[in-house]
Amino acid sequence: MMTPQAFFERAAQLDTADRLAPLRAHFHVPPGVIYLDGNSLGLMPKAVPARLAHVATGEWATGLIRSWSQAGWFDLPMTVGDRIAAIIGAGAAQVAVGDSTSVNLFKCLAAALHLRPGRPVILAEGNNFPSDSYMAAGLAELVPGTQLQFLEPGEDLAARLNRDGHRVAVVLLSHVDYRTAAVRDMARVNALAHAAGALVLWDLSHTTGAVPCDLSGTGSDMAVGCSYKYLNGGPGAPAFAWIAPSMIEQVQQPLAGWMGHAAPFGFTRDYQPAAGARRLVCGTPQVLSLVALDEALKIWDQVDRAALFAKSRQMTQFFVEAVQALCAPHRLRLICPSDPMHRGSHISFDLDEGGFEVMQALAARGVIGDFRGPVTMRFGFAPLYLSFREVAQAVDHLKVILDTREWDQARYRVRGTVT
Amino acid sequence: MMTPQAFFERAAQLDTADRLAPLRAHFHVPPGVIYLDGNSLGLMPKAVPARLAHVATGEWATGLIRSWSQAGWFDLPMTVGDRIAAIIGAGAAQVAVGDSTSVNLFKCLAAALHLRPGRPVILAEGNNFPSDSYMAAGLAELVPGTQLQFLEPGEDLAARLNRDGHRVAVVLLSHVDYRTAAVRDMARVNALAHAAGALVLWDLSHTTGAVPCDLSGTGSDMAVGCSYKYLNGGPGAPAFAWIAPSMIEQVQQPLAGWMGHAAPFGFTRDYQPAAGARRLVCGTPQVLSLVALDEALKIWDQVDRAALFAKSRQMTQFFVEAVQALCAPHRLRLICPSDPMHRGSHISFDLDEGGFEVMQALAARGVIGDFRGPVTMRFGFAPLYLSFREVAQAVDHLKVILDTREWDQARYRVRGTVT
Repeated sequence: MMTPQAFFERAAQLDTADRLAPLRAHFHVPPGVIYLDGNSLGLMPKAVPARLAHVATGEWATGLIRSWSQAGWFDLPMTVGDRIAAIIGAGAAQVAVGDSTSVNLFKCLAAALHLRPGRPVILAEGNNFPSDSYMAAGLAELVPGTQLQFLEPGEDLAARLNRDGHRVAVVLLSHVDYRTAAVRDMARVNALAHAAGALVLWDLSHTTGAVPCDLSGTGSDMAVGCSYKYLNGGPGAPAFAWIAPSMIEQVQQPLAGWMGHAAPFGFTRDYQPAAGARRLVCGTPQVLSLVALDEALKIWDQVDRAALFAKSRQMTQFFVEAVQALCAPHRLRLICPSDPMHRGSHISFDLDEGGFEVMQALAARGVIGDFRGPVTMRFGFAPLYLSFREVAQAVDHLKVILDTREWDQARYRVRGTVT
Repeated sequence: MMTPQAFFERAAQLDTADRLAPLRAHFHVPPGVIYLDGNSLGLMPKAVPARLAHVATGEWATGLIRSWSQAGWFDLPMTVGDRIAAIIGAGAAQVAVGDSTSVNLFKCLAAALHLRPGRPVILAEGNNFPSDSYMAAGLAELVPGTQLQFLEPGEDLAARLNRDGHRVAVVLLSHVDYRTAAVRDMARVNALAHAAGALVLWDLSHTTGAVPCDLSGTGSDMAVGCSYKYLNGGPGAPAFAWIAPSMIEQVQQPLAGWMGHAAPFGFTRDYQPAAGARRLVCGTPQVLSLVALDEALKIWDQVDRAALFAKSRQMTQFFVEAVQALCAPHRLRLICPSDPMHRGSHISFDLDEGGFEVMQALAARGVIGDFRGPVTMRFGFAPLYLSFREVAQAVDHLKVILDTREWDQARYRVRGTVT
């Protein structure tokens, strides 16, 4: 039988070989914490507080209104977008940053309906992150004749498109599933949808910064995603939107605010979209949140992305093997694909009894993951800053909590608000 | 003939009598600047940098994901909303903060169409701030059958509603005009619209924090507004939305993100709106921008609002009288109502030749206002922090620039991006 010691030894070897390990120094890692929730809210890059102080004191307080041009605030949605573009396989000036993932999703879905007139169906996966489904439903209810239909879990997309594809304007999918971490084959799905004449809108929230993504190379149409997970942009950091350059000049989107206008200071009554992705910007962007993200993204100039994605897979696999070896008696069910090439950077185990309490007991020991009801324990592995030693330690804590039933205490049953 | 000296003496008297003068100490006032653009971007409250540092280092970096509950991030859209409610005559738990003014306007317009089925018309004033018109047009284009119609400048709203009111779902108006500062009679307009069966959506962007506003007392239906002008929330600070409590439980709005769901962590496929104004929240809010606004709003606990609004009127009137007395030869045309009771907290003069250059020449002397093409020079008077002496100084600079034709230099003709 494997011992924790064996995994600690393997972790030490893996950490020694990890060329990305120095990147951890860019982040504030709270003492006593093993953070396996970077897939919900990434750690704070150490450079962020100084940047916020500079923008507040050096730009807002002193430059005042002039900072919109002189400090580059006006261009932030696009300049920050360029930093993200490099991570998701998009080109320069193709990504707009601002608003929330939900709002950007609405823009893109509406644009898709406009690009595919006569096709009334939004085909969305039923198990998607709920906000995506809510936004699609909101749009479908607003636009008479539009139908939101669901692809049920396990249902074959090819068969569905074969049957109903001619009525589908857009297929809405997450690239990485927020529960199971299952990764969809982007090129294959795009090809299937295109063969049916439909577009695909990808939600890259659990992809960006941890999982390979090549929007251009896979012939993608549209994508949105958040920046507060593996991009470490801060709580509620602004989201991004991308539409393929071959379509962007035809895009009309209904959230047509002045900051996406061709001449925002012309103050004309009629809307003329700006050229390119700038038309995806709506109202005045929230600068303080944008600059924190901008600062966080500077770290990516130093990241070997192929090495990063490989580390992510190595890390999730190490965790799975350790849990399966050390916690075998406890009926944890891996709900993720077993092949690391087919999953993202988090691992979920279902546990019929006590999953919530186990996560609370882990948190009490400094190991922070999250729980997705009814029975899913979710652990995220941010390869930018985690060490294999931390992963081994987390499993060791988990084993003790399960072996001793430490989780079975009233104080771990109190439910609050978590994300 | 009046001399600048006479106005400086009057300014000294007014400053001595100004009970609000101590509030200026809450703000960072850059040396050498007379800031007459607080109606575009308010000054930075001195407490903001420390709050940002605390939220970054003390909440994000250390509390991590737990700060969503433990630091109150999840509740920020409503707790910040409560601070704004007190300023606009709304009740507790009625105002939701987040997204941009444009996005909130879209939510409310769509909600209005849903509340007034069978009425296809959005009646919007043609001279409104353009983003409002763009968003209304975006919605009208998205929802077949919806018509965006304009109330032309000078056109009588009563007559228009008398003729077409039965087809109007919602009337979209700014309470204070962004150019002329003309204030609409909120109670009267509400009564006119209600008599026609229509709703009214008020844009309070140039109202909030400088002009009296009593949403509840005037029987209003809906309002949105920004927080980066007289509320000093910072560049692109999140906007607010309010819908009357008598209607809010019937409100369906299409930007139905998970943060407005009754049980956001239930992860159900179907959207169930939260009770009350929380349903106006959409995606994950941008926390760093929200907390800066929260900090800026704390100042309002100390503000005698009646005195503040009186100071605003006194200040605009002082400016108008000084300009008209000292710059009489220069053909400045006041485009604002002459009665301070009927205008907001900014003053606009049209100047056929050189208006842009005059504003640039003023800026070179440290007097910052803004220019709204083609010919409007706009000066904002934020009563929270401006002194009458600054107003007198600004007019003195303006007089010299006009008298000496200092503005007529090539370097003042360079146009950049301003807001």
